[in-house]
Amino acid sequence: MKREIEYLKGFQDFLPQDMIPFQKMLDKVRQVYESYGFRPQMTPVIEALSLLEGEEGETGKQIYRMEDKEGNRLGLRFDLTMPLSRIITLYAKELRFPYKRYQYGRVFRYDKPRPGRFREFGQFDGDIIGSSSILADGEICALIRDVMRTLGFSHFLVRVNSRKILTGLAQKLDLQDSQKDKQLFRELDKLDKQGWKQVKKTLLTGVHEEKKASIGFQLTPKQVDMVEEYLAISAPIQWEPAEEGKREIPQFYSYEKILKNLEDFFGENQAGRLGMEELQGLMDFLAEEDQSWLQIDTNIARGLDYYTGPVFETVLVDHPGYGAVYSGGRYDFLLGRFIDFKSFFKEFQEYRQKWKDPLTGQPILPAVGASLGIDRLFAILKDLKLLQPVKTLTQVLVVTMDTNLFLECRQIAEKLRHHGIVAELYTGESRSIKHQLRYADRLEIPLALLYGENEHKENVVAIKDLRKDREDKTKQKPIPKEKMVSEIQKLLGETSGDSH
Amino acid sequence: MKREIEYLKGFQDFLPQDMIPFQKMLDKVRQVYESYGFRPQMTPVIEALSLLEGEEGETGKQIYRMEDKEGNRLGLRFDLTMPLSRIITLYAKELRFPYKRYQYGRVFRYDKPRPGRFREFGQFDGDIIGSSSILADGEICALIRDVMRTLGFSHFLVRVNSRKILTGLAQKLDLQDSQKDKQLFRELDKLDKQGWKQVKKTLLTGVHEEKKASIGFQLTPKQVDMVEEYLAISAPIQWEPAEEGKREIPQFYSYEKILKNLEDFFGENQAGRLGMEELQGLMDFLAEEDQSWLQIDTNIARGLDYYTGPVFETVLVDHPGYGAVYSGGRYDFLLGRFIDFKSFFKEFQEYRQKWKDPLTGQPILPAVGASLGIDRLFAILKDLKLLQPVKTLTQVLVVTMDTNLFLECRQIAEKLRHHGIVAELYTGESRSIKHQLRYADRLEIPLALLYGENEHKENVVAIKDLRKDREDKTKQKPIPKEKMVSEIQKLLGETSGDSH
Repeated sequence: MKREIEYLKGFQDFLPQDMIPFQKMLDKVRQVYESYGFRPQMTPVIEALSLLEGEEGETGKQIYRMEDKEGNRLGLRFDLTMPLSRIITLYAKELRFPYKRYQYGRVFRYDKPRPGRFREFGQFDGDIIGSSSILADGEICALIRDVMRTLGFSHFLVRVNSRKILTGLAQKLDLQDSQKDKQLFRELDKLDKQGWKQVKKTLLTGVHEEKKASIGFQLTPKQVDMVEEYLAISAPIQWEPAEEGKREIPQFYSYEKILKNLEDFFGENQAGRLGMEELQGLMDFLAEEDQSWLQIDTNIARGLDYYTGPVFETVLVDHPGYGAVYSGGRYDFLLGRFIDFKSFFKEFQEYRQKWKDPLTGQPILPAVGASLGIDRLFAILKDLKLLQPVKTLTQVLVVTMDTNLFLECRQIAEKLRHHGIVAELYTGESRSIKHQLRYADRLEIPLALLYGENEHKENVVAIKDLRKDREDKTKQKPIPKEKMVSEIQKLLGETSGDSH
Repeated sequence: MKREIEYLKGFQDFLPQDMIPFQKMLDKVRQVYESYGFRPQMTPVIEALSLLEGEEGETGKQIYRMEDKEGNRLGLRFDLTMPLSRIITLYAKELRFPYKRYQYGRVFRYDKPRPGRFREFGQFDGDIIGSSSILADGEICALIRDVMRTLGFSHFLVRVNSRKILTGLAQKLDLQDSQKDKQLFRELDKLDKQGWKQVKKTLLTGVHEEKKASIGFQLTPKQVDMVEEYLAISAPIQWEPAEEGKREIPQFYSYEKILKNLEDFFGENQAGRLGMEELQGLMDFLAEEDQSWLQIDTNIARGLDYYTGPVFETVLVDHPGYGAVYSGGRYDFLLGRFIDFKSFFKEFQEYRQKWKDPLTGQPILPAVGASLGIDRLFAILKDLKLLQPVKTLTQVLVVTMDTNLFLECRQIAEKLRHHGIVAELYTGESRSIKHQLRYADRLEIPLALLYGENEHKENVVAIKDLRKDREDKTKQKPIPKEKMVSEIQKLLGETSGDSH
């Protein structure tokens, strides 16, 4: 190397063998979104920093920032949701509500790079904006199901909860707005790893062991009993910590039983009841014979603070170690943050009564969606051998051995293309057949077409099936030129499943 | 608005009505590239600044720069060619040469925003790396032709020249390596606008008029005569400046005559002769009955300094005002800039003799490609009404009027989707049929499917063709549920050209 090329951690190149299946995956996902009537949208990678900076916590610290020569403070988007709030505010009048949009794009987070975690990665988002109906939440769940099935996952579970139920729990514990509620939710996420015994200690007076010491959350034993009761609503509590790196998916109760447990637990608590209604509505809408993909799990909190209603996360039942692979939820307060609702509702009279938070009465811009971290899912699909590298899309390599026949070789290639066959003309400078066939072989191109002086004289082309004749270099099949297309189609069709 | 949203100049949002046709356009382009055997590749948006900074001149100044918390100097890619040089250097052993890759991606230039010029825009690049054969250049030209046709342009011209011919001209003028050669090439680009008389003045002693004065290039009258002779090789010189905003495409000579003129002009000049051979090879390879799309124009220089062989630019014959819309060329010296050729050729023995610049004998990594500024082309297609906004992909809106029938409505939508029909379930909170049909109408969804208590009882669905029945709100056609799919397919098929 003349000059060292700097290696940037957390960034990845997709060479064709990965990019071909990656793109196929993207296309499949896109097709599912489109089949539901989601419409594509594109926003810039660069946004004004002021749009992104509202974000609190970890993500806010991870923004790539810069300044341009005019002094504008810019940032690279860290998700596709913040740009969506800009879109909704700027173009509200042009959009029809419910606005169902999908967007695929690269997003940027200055995070610690880990296996499967990148600083630049693709997100595929689908959202329904401007509807507080459970129909919207339900369609998002059905969409998740269809995307997962399309990608080839057969055994997955969409776990749903409602943030309102967690609000209800916080109310019942008298922790609401005390910041302790968020601490509690975060602690519950650790149940798997630490087991209930350990978590319970933290909730009470903390840990006072030889090497570890913490002050604990100082909940009363009565409060902790109530937490314990809550935790048993969807499934028996796991008392022991899970083995390192292994999560187990609990044995859940039937959704009727869970709803009954919720009713017993919440009684007249308004937030809890609203949450129950949401879950009931969701289950009614999604009811079907095979409901093995859907499960209420009231212990799910989802990290992001902006969720307000149903939340979903998807796990691979046979591989729970991967964690949640496709998540989302309702976030009624986020997209309206730039909107002056007084003038907005003058424009959109019909929504004034409907777009109101049932708990606080505040105006909302209702929204629900799910985001797919597509680079990570691609890595998992490869890991599970559900996706294989694909070296090329070429079906026929047209060998170019005779300078005088370049023109005719191109015309042959074009004729094949015209019939939907991916025909690559060998464009290298070597005129050696052996060299060109080796090229085809290494790229796993199924067929080679040879057209030299002899073939020209006899008005034929010679086809070599490289899948079968790899060893026998002399085996070629002469085919009359006018039958070329159909013969090649037949050869490709025979093993079309393999070819690409 | 609660908080003003900053408006960033030079950036654009694509709402669905634009994004749907934009994506269709991208898909079409992709399909053409893939039909030739080009394989996709993806690289990050962020690159080490050191990779990008090699670029001299305007583009180098336009790089968006930033620094991360580890102190890495980063930049946003301004094209897809610099990342390609990194890919080739890092992965040379894994790639098969010729490496035919395509890449679509967003690129970033801090440029003065103008209509159709953005600071963030999409490029669609196709390149053949690792072949000095004219076959590679020829396939790129054929690719440009097919992409243009696929996009719906019927009357376009790919103008080709060779940089070696310009090198030959500079040699004959004794201007080689004097920097005056580049000044000259830039001046020739102004011929259209300024006319020969004006350009000639600049080449000689400059302009000495009342308000304008310049020192001129100080070429001798003999040199200027030679330039004049050169300019007439492909077409008669345009003596007068073109009208403001209007360019005219000259009446070119036949390519045989141009090659003859070149021969007369260059005689034994080596660079000129090599350039002629390139053009001859290209024309021989691309010869076909309808060659109206291809033209040798020796006055084309192409802005970028890195070109070394054939260069191409595409103009719309009926709309020359748009300038060059799809350009490229051979750039044998660029991709090798990080490569230590001594060790490289140890690995790739077979290329040692072939990958050598014929003029200087220096080692090269031969490459040829073309780049499509896809946002700009999209703007032109819209401008010329070759592309229309498309509001939605939804073919059937499943109206949701009865809470008790939500589940069945979803199942109906899913059945349609299962048969490849884009069926959107109305997910808003309004249960009013009128409201939902207005939604369908505004999005120009062709069909609405109604399923209420009556339809449920009679085991039918009611189909409303919104294309025909926009006025008559009562006109609905009841269809037995088991015939639903085929009836809808029939209705959509009847006007499938219109629907999307």
